[in-house]
Amino acid sequence: MERSLTGSFAERAEVAKSRCGPLVFGIDPSGGVLERWGLGDTSVGLGRFVDKVVETASGQVAFVKPQVAFFERHGWQGFRELQRFVSEARSAGLLVILDAKRGDIGTTNDAYADAYLRQGSPLSADAVTVHPYLGLEALSSLIEAAWINGACVFVVTRSSNPEGRPLQTARLATGMTVEAELLAEIGRVNAEYAPSGIGPVGSVVGISATVEPLDVERARAMLLAPGLGAQGGTPADLARAFGGCRERVLPSASRAVLERGPDVSALRAALQELSDALAAALDEKG
Amino acid sequence: MERSLTGSFAERAEVAKSRCGPLVFGIDPSGGVLERWGLGDTSVGLGRFVDKVVETASGQVAFVKPQVAFFERHGWQGFRELQRFVSEARSAGLLVILDAKRGDIGTTNDAYADAYLRQGSPLSADAVTVHPYLGLEALSSLIEAAWINGACVFVVTRSSNPEGRPLQTARLATGMTVEAELLAEIGRVNAEYAPSGIGPVGSVVGISATVEPLDVERARAMLLAPGLGAQGGTPADLARAFGGCRERVLPSASRAVLERGPDVSALRAALQELSDALAAALDEKG
Repeated sequence: MERSLTGSFAERAEVAKSRCGPLVFGIDPSGGVLERWGLGDTSVGLGRFVDKVVETASGQVAFVKPQVAFFERHGWQGFRELQRFVSEARSAGLLVILDAKRGDIGTTNDAYADAYLRQGSPLSADAVTVHPYLGLEALSSLIEAAWINGACVFVVTRSSNPEGRPLQTARLATGMTVEAELLAEIGRVNAEYAPSGIGPVGSVVGISATVEPLDVERARAMLLAPGLGAQGGTPADLARAFGGCRERVLPSASRAVLERGPDVSALRAALQELSDALAAALDEKG
Repeated sequence: MERSLTGSFAERAEVAKSRCGPLVFGIDPSGGVLERWGLGDTSVGLGRFVDKVVETASGQVAFVKPQVAFFERHGWQGFRELQRFVSEARSAGLLVILDAKRGDIGTTNDAYADAYLRQGSPLSADAVTVHPYLGLEALSSLIEAAWINGACVFVVTRSSNPEGRPLQTARLATGMTVEAELLAEIGRVNAEYAPSGIGPVGSVVGISATVEPLDVERARAMLLAPGLGAQGGTPADLARAFGGCRERVLPSASRAVLERGPDVSALRAALQELSDALAAALDEKG
């Protein structure tokens, strides 16, 4: 498989982290946020929100994670603002992780690759999140497109909500749980693409203080960890959950930051505080 | 929970089926289809495709199922064509099942409900497909919005592709498989909403000649069955798989029909042939 000339997602993420740290700024423009910021819950208000978050994020964080649902609720005009956001954020040097949670069978995944992971894709992103319910193998066209384009496919493995636990801990014929087997499978796919490095398949592993840590090391993957802040996860939980792979973790916070808006300097201060807390927790020897 | 004044999805589907039968026309405008139809693989070509399929479907079938990925690959202009398709198809009396395979945690699902399942939603549809990986309970805001709006949330339960089998047959702590437990859970939720009828949570169950049939009856649900035609499922497989609930099954075919285009009368003939074969297979006593 031809490697991208621009470097893999893992390599690009490493460079970006060395500048601004691993914090991912989650972009969740709910109707409530748009109203509280005085922008109005319309696609025009969403457009003003986009301007503000691009300004906030530039130079302050390395990663942004727009939650696509909050753009889709404004129909095609919302999708147009998402497209503008992706383009402007990338132009500002940010890595964009589209939290789209897509995923289907083969031919349809090829269409999603066209949408999000190819050169010239209308919403060409640095990474996209996907569901694994139809099987990791069914995602191969997305994974291949990601590799060629220096991007990443983050597979939801362990979610940050409690309702997902029964399914995610069901046992396969191998005796492994669904989430553990997924990490192993991701590891096998990544080893084929990048025998000595980190491959194009990432894993989404929610932060929780109460659930037993997973063996994330075997995934040879970048790890996206939602649930920091509003969902109850702390930087200390994060350090505990990711043991020996702390350097591959991208922790994400959204509501805990957005509630400090709409003032750009207040938003930047919230991001800085979280970044400082993360650095302190992740730098401690585990 | 306040019931919609327009009737539940199951009731509306029953009326629609009595007119045109249960066949669902799957709308998969891949780049290949747009090129073969001489429309061009652009959002303008996609717009012409939309015009043709609305004309084809009107009066010929009761249900259309646009696969959202094939619209997303054209960015916001593609999303605008999807929005126009949904609006024009519903104006023509078709029931629109959006094959979007969305699904997230609670607050994000509320945003998806805003997008697809509420009065005044920009893409207000009759049904939407979702992933269950984050747990059925996490989908409650979508389900409630569907019920109020006379719509349906189709939960992917058994997919039509082989790669999904290991996860879908993993065993929960209860000893049941993921797919069987999902059907039971769907049945419990539906019983709360519609104690004596069919509830707002549907189930997607792929057609396969080789896999053991599921106990779909317990879901008290409308059943969406993709995989007719190009993916290898036959009307006879369908009749076998859905035993005693044949009257709740909506079988879907896409490629097998679209390959007969772009001539509208040829497309209508393909739909009619499939409908006739379905009627013959489903009318036989099981």
